[in-house]
Amino acid sequence: MKLFFTLIILFTNITFFAQSDSNFIRKIYDEALSKGNSYEDLRSLCKDVGARLSGSAQAQMAVEWGEAKMKSYNFDKVYMQEIKVPRWERGTKEAAWVKTTKGEVSPIKILALGGSIGTNGILKGQLIEFSSLDELKKAKRKDVEGKIVFLSQAFNQNDINTFKAYGGCYPIRGDGAVEAAKLGAKAVVIRSLGSSLDDYPHTGSMHYDEAVEKIPAAAISTNDSELIGELLKKGELEFIFEMDCQTLADVTSYNVIGEITGTEKPDEIITFGGHLDSWDAGEGAHDDGAGIVHCLEALRLLKVLDYKPKHTLRVVFFMNEENGNKGGQTYASFVKEKGEKHIAALESDRGGFAPKGFSCDGDLEKFKNLFNFDKLFNPYELYEFQKGYGGVDIGPLKKQFEGITLFGFVPDSQRYFDFHHAESDVFEAVNKRELELGCAAISSFIYLIDKNL
Amino acid sequence: MKLFFTLIILFTNITFFAQSDSNFIRKIYDEALSKGNSYEDLRSLCKDVGARLSGSAQAQMAVEWGEAKMKSYNFDKVYMQEIKVPRWERGTKEAAWVKTTKGEVSPIKILALGGSIGTNGILKGQLIEFSSLDELKKAKRKDVEGKIVFLSQAFNQNDINTFKAYGGCYPIRGDGAVEAAKLGAKAVVIRSLGSSLDDYPHTGSMHYDEAVEKIPAAAISTNDSELIGELLKKGELEFIFEMDCQTLADVTSYNVIGEITGTEKPDEIITFGGHLDSWDAGEGAHDDGAGIVHCLEALRLLKVLDYKPKHTLRVVFFMNEENGNKGGQTYASFVKEKGEKHIAALESDRGGFAPKGFSCDGDLEKFKNLFNFDKLFNPYELYEFQKGYGGVDIGPLKKQFEGITLFGFVPDSQRYFDFHHAESDVFEAVNKRELELGCAAISSFIYLIDKNL
Repeated sequence: MKLFFTLIILFTNITFFAQSDSNFIRKIYDEALSKGNSYEDLRSLCKDVGARLSGSAQAQMAVEWGEAKMKSYNFDKVYMQEIKVPRWERGTKEAAWVKTTKGEVSPIKILALGGSIGTNGILKGQLIEFSSLDELKKAKRKDVEGKIVFLSQAFNQNDINTFKAYGGCYPIRGDGAVEAAKLGAKAVVIRSLGSSLDDYPHTGSMHYDEAVEKIPAAAISTNDSELIGELLKKGELEFIFEMDCQTLADVTSYNVIGEITGTEKPDEIITFGGHLDSWDAGEGAHDDGAGIVHCLEALRLLKVLDYKPKHTLRVVFFMNEENGNKGGQTYASFVKEKGEKHIAALESDRGGFAPKGFSCDGDLEKFKNLFNFDKLFNPYELYEFQKGYGGVDIGPLKKQFEGITLFGFVPDSQRYFDFHHAESDVFEAVNKRELELGCAAISSFIYLIDKNL
Repeated sequence: MKLFFTLIILFTNITFFAQSDSNFIRKIYDEALSKGNSYEDLRSLCKDVGARLSGSAQAQMAVEWGEAKMKSYNFDKVYMQEIKVPRWERGTKEAAWVKTTKGEVSPIKILALGGSIGTNGILKGQLIEFSSLDELKKAKRKDVEGKIVFLSQAFNQNDINTFKAYGGCYPIRGDGAVEAAKLGAKAVVIRSLGSSLDDYPHTGSMHYDEAVEKIPAAAISTNDSELIGELLKKGELEFIFEMDCQTLADVTSYNVIGEITGTEKPDEIITFGGHLDSWDAGEGAHDDGAGIVHCLEALRLLKVLDYKPKHTLRVVFFMNEENGNKGGQTYASFVKEKGEKHIAALESDRGGFAPKGFSCDGDLEKFKNLFNFDKLFNPYELYEFQKGYGGVDIGPLKKQFEGITLFGFVPDSQRYFDFHHAESDVFEAVNKRELELGCAAISSFIYLIDKNL
C-alpha cells in the first residue's frame, strides 16, 4: 500500500513537472514569436556591421556590437576573451575569363578561397578538369604540370541532407591547392560548394602544406562550372585571372561572452553559441549571424521570463570559426586553465531555417532519459533528437572535458548551401518566423538541460 | 514445427517487402532529385502561362498546358472534364489613399478581394477599425453606417503552424463584406492574411449574401495596415479608393486528368492532384503550381521507374479551387455518376516547401498498419503522419464515397503565407530541392498505398 502511494506521488510529480515544462516552453515560444528581438538583432548585425572576416575592422565592430548587445540585455556578466586570429584580405582585384582556341572569351565570376595567395598580376594557363580530388590524385605530373586545375565535382543531389553533399565535395576546396601543386599546377579553380545552379561563387577555407608550393585557389559559380564543362567538351580552354588577396600578420580579437549565474551550481556551466565572424561575401546572415542571434535570444528569453537557472548559462560569440577556429580553441584552453566545469555545450551554425531538432555528440540516451523530447517538442514540429555533430567552435571542449555532451542545433538543411559563403547570404535570405522558432527551440532545450541535469 | 517455418517464411516475406519498398522509394527520390522535371515544369507553368484565374484566357492556356504536358509523359489516358466556372475580373483600376483631417494623404496598395464588386468611380468614407469580425458584429449600426470598415485582425504569430493562424483570420476576408454591409457600411477593407510585415496585399475569396447589400471589399498590405492603425490612433481618417472589378457570366473550363491503368484492379482508383487555377496576382507558384507539378511528377516518376500499379493511379489538375470549387464538386459528381470506385485521394495545396509528412482525413490507423511510415520516411526527414485535413478539391469525394480516406501533403508551413494570393507568389519563391523532395514524398506515398491496399 505504501508502494502504491509512493507510485501515485511519483507519478503525480512526473506529471506536474512535465506539465510545468510544457507550460514554460509554451511561454518561451510565445515570447520569441510575439515579442522577440532576434530578427531586429540579425538585421542590425547584417546591416549595421555587415560581413566580418576575422581580423577586419568589421569583425572588431562585431565584437563591440556583441558586447553592447549583451550588456543591453542585462546579463549577469558580460566580458571578452582575447585571442589571436589570422588576417587574410581579399584585396581589390578579382577578375577571370575563359578563352577558347578560337579566341572567344567569356567572363567568369570568381571568389578567391580564403587563405589563398594572389596571382601576382595576370595568371594564365590551360584548364584541365578533374571530377574529384581522388581523380586529380591519380593524374600524371606530365598531364597537369604548368596547367590550371579545374575541380568540377558537383553536390550529390541525391543526399537528402545537404550537409552530407557538402562533406562529399569538401576535399576539392580544402585540399585542392595542395594536391594540384604536387603535380606542378599553376593554380586551382573549383566548382562552388553549393546546392543550386546559380551565378554566385562560394568562398571558404582552404589550406597549404608548407612542403608544397603555394598556388592561387578560387571558386567559380555552379553555372560557370557548367559552362566551362561544356566548353571543355569542345576543345582546349585557357583560364585567365587576377587576384590580389594576401595574408597579413595575426591580429588581436575576442570571443564575446555573456552569462546568467547559476543559483544552485554556479560553477557548472552550460555553454551555447555561434560564431561572430563570417566570410567577406554577403552579410553572414545564415552563416552564422543566425546562430549568434539564436543563442543571444535564447538567453534573453530565459532572462525576461525570469527563469533562475540551476547552472551558469553562458552564451559565447566565438571569433574565427571560418578560417582558424582560434576562438573555439582558445575558449577550450581558457576554461581548462581556469578549472571551470562544463557539463554540456550547444552550437548553432547551420543557418536560420525552420528547426528540425538537435544532434548529440555524446551520451544521447542520458539526455533522452532526462526529458521526454517527443512529448515536449513534437507540438513545435521538432522530431529529430539523434546522434550527430556538435559544432566547430565547441568541438575543442571535447578534448578538455571527458564525457562532455555536445549538441548541434539542427534546422532544415535544404536551402543552406544556396547561401553559404556567398554574396547571397544576406539578411533578406532569412525568414523571421523560421529564425524565431530556432531561438525558441534552443532556449527551450537549454532550459530542459539546465533544469533536469 | 510447421508453425515455426510458417513464421520464418512470413517474417522473411515481411523483411523482403520492407526492403523492396525502401529500395524503390530510394529510386523515386534519386530520380526526382537528379533527373526530375518538376522545377522546369513549374517554371513553364509560372512563366509560359502565368497567373490563371478561373475563366481567364490564362486558365484556358493552363488547361492546354496541362493536357500537353500529361500527353508528353505518355500516361495511359489523358482527358479533360468539362465544368462551368465563375468569371471574375479585377479590371484595370485599383488605387487607394488615406487622408488625415489635416489633409495629409498616403497612398495605400490594394487588391480587390476575389468576387468583390467595383466602386463605381471613386468611393470615399471615414474609416472605422475593428480588430476582428466578432468585434464588428457587436458594433452598433449608428457607428458604422456610411463608413468604410477596416478589419485589422493580424495573424496570431504564436500559432506554430501558420495554417492555424490563417484559419483564425479567415472570417474577416470571407464574411467581412456581409457583416459590414448589415450595419450599413459603404465598403470593407481588410488587413491581408499574411504572416510577415511587408508591402504585398493578399487577395482571396469572399462572399456576398443575396439578402444583404453588396459592398466593395479589398485587402491592404500588413505594413499599410500597421500604418493605418497608427494614424487612427491620432485621429479620423478618410479612405479613398477606386476598383473596377466585376463578375461576368460563367464560362466553360476543364479539369485535366491523366491515368496509369491498374494491372490488378483497374476499376479501383487512387486520385491525387492539385489545382490548376490561381489568383491573378503573382504566378500561382506555391498556390498551387507546386501542387500541380508535385502530382504530375509523382505519376511521371512511377512511370519512368516502370512501376505497374495494382490500382488505377489518376492525377487530376482541378480547376477553380480558389473561387468556387467547381472542379472538385464536378469531379466528385462525375465519378459518382460513372460508378467509379475511389479508394483513396490525396491533395497537394500547401506550397512547394520542404516536406514534413501527410495528414489523414479518414482511417489513419488502417494506413499506419499498411506500411511502416516511420521506417520508410524518417530517412527522408518526414516525421508527420497524423489526423488532419485532406484538401478543398478532393473534399467533395467524401460525400460520394463513404469511408474514403483523404490525404493532404504537408510541407513546412512557415513561409507559405508570405506568398499566398500575393504578387510575391512567383516561381523564384520556390526552392528546387524543396519542390523535388515534395514530388518524391508524394510519389512514394502513392506507391505505398497502391502496393499495400
